[in-house]
Amino acid sequence: MNFQPGKDTLKREFKTVGTRTPRPDGLDKITGRAQFGADMTAPGMLWGLILRSPHAHARIKNIDTSKAEAVNGVHAVVTSADFGPCPDDVLDVRENIMARDKALYDGHAVAAVAATSRAAARQALKLIKVDYEVLPHVTDVDEAMKPSAPIINNKLFTKGLDKTPRKPSNVAERFEFGHGDVEAGFKQADLVVERTFKTEATHQGYIEPHACLASMGTDGKGDIWCCTQGHFMVRQVCSALLGMDASALRVTASEIGGGFGGKTTVFIEPVALALSLKANRPVKVVMSRSEVLRASGPTSSTSIDVKIGMKKDGTITAGDATLRYQGGAFPGSAVPYGAMAAFACYDLKAVRAVGYDVIANRPKQAAYRAPGAPMAAYAVESVVDELCRELKLDPLDVRLKNASSDGSKASYGPNFDVIGLRATLEAAKAHPHYRAKLGRNQGRGVACGFWFNFGGETSVSLNVSADGTVGLSVGTPDIGGSRASIGNMAAEELGIPHDKVRCIIADTASLGYNDVTDGSRVTFASGLAAINAARDAIGKMCERAAGIWGIPVDAVTWEDGAARPSSPNAGKHEPLTLADIAAQAGATGGPISGHCEINAEGAGVSFATHLVDTEVDPDTGHVKILRYTVFQDAGKAVHPSYVEGQFQGGAVQGIGWALNEEYIYGEDGRLQNAGFLDYRIPVASDLPMIDAVIVEVPNPGHPYGVRGVGETSIVPPLAAISNSVSGAAGVRMTELPMSPPRVLKALGRI
Amino acid sequence: MNFQPGKDTLKREFKTVGTRTPRPDGLDKITGRAQFGADMTAPGMLWGLILRSPHAHARIKNIDTSKAEAVNGVHAVVTSADFGPCPDDVLDVRENIMARDKALYDGHAVAAVAATSRAAARQALKLIKVDYEVLPHVTDVDEAMKPSAPIINNKLFTKGLDKTPRKPSNVAERFEFGHGDVEAGFKQADLVVERTFKTEATHQGYIEPHACLASMGTDGKGDIWCCTQGHFMVRQVCSALLGMDASALRVTASEIGGGFGGKTTVFIEPVALALSLKANRPVKVVMSRSEVLRASGPTSSTSIDVKIGMKKDGTITAGDATLRYQGGAFPGSAVPYGAMAAFACYDLKAVRAVGYDVIANRPKQAAYRAPGAPMAAYAVESVVDELCRELKLDPLDVRLKNASSDGSKASYGPNFDVIGLRATLEAAKAHPHYRAKLGRNQGRGVACGFWFNFGGETSVSLNVSADGTVGLSVGTPDIGGSRASIGNMAAEELGIPHDKVRCIIADTASLGYNDVTDGSRVTFASGLAAINAARDAIGKMCERAAGIWGIPVDAVTWEDGAARPSSPNAGKHEPLTLADIAAQAGATGGPISGHCEINAEGAGVSFATHLVDTEVDPDTGHVKILRYTVFQDAGKAVHPSYVEGQFQGGAVQGIGWALNEEYIYGEDGRLQNAGFLDYRIPVASDLPMIDAVIVEVPNPGHPYGVRGVGETSIVPPLAAISNSVSGAAGVRMTELPMSPPRVLKALGRI
Repeated sequence: MNFQPGKDTLKREFKTVGTRTPRPDGLDKITGRAQFGADMTAPGMLWGLILRSPHAHARIKNIDTSKAEAVNGVHAVVTSADFGPCPDDVLDVRENIMARDKALYDGHAVAAVAATSRAAARQALKLIKVDYEVLPHVTDVDEAMKPSAPIINNKLFTKGLDKTPRKPSNVAERFEFGHGDVEAGFKQADLVVERTFKTEATHQGYIEPHACLASMGTDGKGDIWCCTQGHFMVRQVCSALLGMDASALRVTASEIGGGFGGKTTVFIEPVALALSLKANRPVKVVMSRSEVLRASGPTSSTSIDVKIGMKKDGTITAGDATLRYQGGAFPGSAVPYGAMAAFACYDLKAVRAVGYDVIANRPKQAAYRAPGAPMAAYAVESVVDELCRELKLDPLDVRLKNASSDGSKASYGPNFDVIGLRATLEAAKAHPHYRAKLGRNQGRGVACGFWFNFGGETSVSLNVSADGTVGLSVGTPDIGGSRASIGNMAAEELGIPHDKVRCIIADTASLGYNDVTDGSRVTFASGLAAINAARDAIGKMCERAAGIWGIPVDAVTWEDGAARPSSPNAGKHEPLTLADIAAQAGATGGPISGHCEINAEGAGVSFATHLVDTEVDPDTGHVKILRYTVFQDAGKAVHPSYVEGQFQGGAVQGIGWALNEEYIYGEDGRLQNAGFLDYRIPVASDLPMIDAVIVEVPNPGHPYGVRGVGETSIVPPLAAISNSVSGAAGVRMTELPMSPPRVLKALGRI
Repeated sequence: MNFQPGKDTLKREFKTVGTRTPRPDGLDKITGRAQFGADMTAPGMLWGLILRSPHAHARIKNIDTSKAEAVNGVHAVVTSADFGPCPDDVLDVRENIMARDKALYDGHAVAAVAATSRAAARQALKLIKVDYEVLPHVTDVDEAMKPSAPIINNKLFTKGLDKTPRKPSNVAERFEFGHGDVEAGFKQADLVVERTFKTEATHQGYIEPHACLASMGTDGKGDIWCCTQGHFMVRQVCSALLGMDASALRVTASEIGGGFGGKTTVFIEPVALALSLKANRPVKVVMSRSEVLRASGPTSSTSIDVKIGMKKDGTITAGDATLRYQGGAFPGSAVPYGAMAAFACYDLKAVRAVGYDVIANRPKQAAYRAPGAPMAAYAVESVVDELCRELKLDPLDVRLKNASSDGSKASYGPNFDVIGLRATLEAAKAHPHYRAKLGRNQGRGVACGFWFNFGGETSVSLNVSADGTVGLSVGTPDIGGSRASIGNMAAEELGIPHDKVRCIIADTASLGYNDVTDGSRVTFASGLAAINAARDAIGKMCERAAGIWGIPVDAVTWEDGAARPSSPNAGKHEPLTLADIAAQAGATGGPISGHCEINAEGAGVSFATHLVDTEVDPDTGHVKILRYTVFQDAGKAVHPSYVEGQFQGGAVQGIGWALNEEYIYGEDGRLQNAGFLDYRIPVASDLPMIDAVIVEVPNPGHPYGVRGVGETSIVPPLAAISNSVSGAAGVRMTELPMSPPRVLKALGRI
């Protein structure tokens, strides 16, 4: 009964889907009953602490742990020597979680201690003697690309060049996307604008620092409790690093205090596991905020050139971008996504985007909502805005004129299916916000954004209890309300009230494999799997009903939560509700469950248009957000409140990124603002109410039309706000964040 | 691919099944990493303590909790008033876990407190003022049946009588089983022996007291962590008592420190849940040993009449038994099982067993390995032994002559399928033990035992990891090594090494419904479901292989852990191992899992014969066990070490029951020995090595021939030891335990 894209009809009449049911995690989170990463304990548990490099780049000549090991209460000390050979695909993870020959950034782990108390562990950390040879470092992306830059990894040669490079480089890889003749396109333009932009690294700023409790025995079996976006990923990476069988490691995902992409990889879990193995005791590791900022995964800082040509009527003739992303000390920045997403909103005849993946002496970047795309959109949408202003064209009209639409060829290759960009632009144009009056020092910004949305491997089981209530077991940690939306889809499909379904996140030993909660994939893919699992259960319940009635199963239909005999038997038997069938499950063959394992395809891409009004204080450089409206295609908003929350949350994080958030590295290569006092995220008083307009252009790849909504919402804000500030300030802004000093500088005040 | 009894061939060549693989829980239990019921904690957790009645029978006129509620740190006090209406089938549980109008036994819960510390909770307990009106009580089963006995429940009228009784009674129900003309049978006998036996209540004596951590919110959702034999049962009963949806309550079974049947019901879990609901905090409740003995579920004490007629050649002409079991303050003793099992070892033309379910002022009985059967076998096998001795017949020969065998009509109704009683008797006869010389004051006892073995509702999921290892998710708590045996069966079926499978106990939200771990059902039923789940996964893996090879799936066979093209394609493609297919799972359709939900039928009954030699010290009355050999049919011993452990464990618990263990109630109706100092379980120095002989008569109802082994082993010991002591002492013993005072009394020494 699995859903086949294109073979199913979009169901348009919903009972539960589309309603604002109560948050299933609401009470737990309000009362403190929810158990987060640091909440788990175990008898005999030790506390693990990690020693981190104070140097941005340094050779580790020797580590002497003998004094630390002698501290009373210390049960284990580990260094990179405790992590043996591992598969190639986790080599960088191994080195990132524990420096091997060199410390590659300020905060890079070099050793770890497990002790009966945090005090003993702290004391031991101080007694570990690391003999460093400090090396020259580089933290800026443009500096890192220079031939004169300190080389961070002697074995790294640029991939993706026409010729094999002869010298090691900090450029890990070159990517190129696009089609058509860009130079010819520029020649057709009435106006060509070319600009260079820079953005600083930002952090996801999740409330909950990384935390885990790990336990591993010499029998090769282990258990981890942790806050993560993907406990199957934790299982896979940790088992590979520790040389265990994947199935021998059971990982439970705790309640999660925010992820936003930053919890899609591991930092402390393998260290805790190695400490536990050595100590033969459970070990808890909880990062401090300073550790989170110094040594988890922020975004790339970037440097981007964009060149766009436009005719006087607003037609874009060509677009060209060069994106340089430093992704920290290891390859793998999100630059390919940035390059692919840069022009995705536009249906262009000639387009090119070249990306450079650069390494620098910074923590390895991690995903952060639509990784790579906000910076690319910032640069492209800034230039489009500048062209509109120069040509005195309405920015929404220009976007409508050039917008990607159903079937158009995407700048990164494929042809789009049914998409909703145009609908978001039309919604924006019709919205009162677009007609609101602006005052002195105020500006209005418009920007569009795109995200791919992913599907991926997903397993769901649905278990019917004897009282006719349903347990839904999914394997994708709920970072944005997915328990509600997935549970509601299952309830919809089964035809029972939403509150008869409890959706939980099963551990890795209890359910089939699931990809990480990322790529805005969960409501789409786990939802699809839940619908399929419900259909599987419905099929079994129809079989039970057929058996009870003594009629063939194909003479039974499921409607409104009950099995009903179809003609010619219709009316001969009273309907059997789910609860009726559940009550007889034991007598009719045993428990009733439905299952689905799928590699979900058909996740529809998603677009958004953001409108923002700002006011710039020319004396202080302070930017105030006056109005903010998000228009985004949700395909089908399964739970509108959560969808609005995603829209608003993306906008708010974008506001932080645009105005204040940045990693500030000193000349010494050390992070100077490793705390929320100095790394300034938006607080409530910085923000207006964010208006969220849900546009629904159903995704033909999902039976209910669902598209992921979690990431697109952070793509337009950087550009929209920059465009708004540029308008308010009367000067084109080209660097993020637009913090007061940068604004004052742009205004020529300092 | 589910196994159909009779339609499958018994697989006789095993690679993993039948081998002694390492214990999967061994290291965890030795190192303390295993987490038992009391090991779980939660932030903000409160400690719950329960106030218990000091009276055997008392009306509760009033409970004043005001002073307790005022104690600093106390967050909640609950009484029966906090448990509202509930379905009829849990009314007795509701009353047992918290006394309502009357306290019905010494130790009956009357109130409970949750506080931030145990000290505060203890202080509060002391301040709860219960106004009792003490009532006459009765604790002995024969006394309870007398017309003059205090009536415990005015609403209880005996069920199962020909006439509707007019007066309330302590006899809850009368049962009768059998066939043929018993009186005529006795007339054909050369010798008829009739005797009355009494046995005292015993406790399962599990190491780990009941413990749980419960958390429940006003949103109707709750979570319980507890040590139990059936977390789905905990879910079902607690949700019914608290008025919750079953699926809204998630129950996780901890590692368990022994159950033996005693953890098949709830005592503290609903109380902890009610406290948590009231306090809005997680609440932990851990019973003390004294509470376990006073207020959990021991066995019934019994009074049994047995009359058997025998011809001189050893033919039994008729058997008749009347069994009176007091099951504590609520109906539901195991007397029907006792009455059914009493003569199950014998193929008789005339047999009758009448059972009376009696209530008394004692804690409600719970299951204890083969509930009800050991006492029945004790009485019947004692009389058979006496007949053999009187008629100078070999007790094994007599049993062989009368033994139930394939197809014979069981004394309780059905016809047996293929059974192994005769094989155990022949094994006993051939064993050196049976020819060992006996000295002065020494005796040899023989007895047989029977247990039904159950199947029941069972769900298993099997998840293949990308590295080709396997997670097996079962829902039946492992009380006797079932993780090893179920995992090994899955490995056998898949054709991979046993250590590539990790078997875990999934919580109630992560897996379909499972009946309790009882009835010796788990290795049979969860094993069957695991084999079916493996076959389901194999089917899917063959589909993947067929897709990779581009051949039809029915041209693929699974052998030795790999998919292989069958003729005519054989040899055209290299086999794809499970690991090969697992590595490509994502690319070939997604994760691979196998599932089975079943109401397992075909659990084969099981028989055992025990041989025991004892020596009686006529001066002290002390009985020493000299030799002990168990012969039992395991069908197929999946993991021989665990099977031997079950055989030995049953014998050891039987030795305790036979010789020392008993509940001693004073005249005041209070339990006088509520602790392991006075309730004497066997210690190592009381025991010889127990020799375990595994007999294998495959169960045709299981693809590998498995029969449950956990319970039959405790059925023969009471009788075997009593027969041995009777021989050694030269006097027929008719009361248990045969503690030194009773032996001295039987010998006429006191």
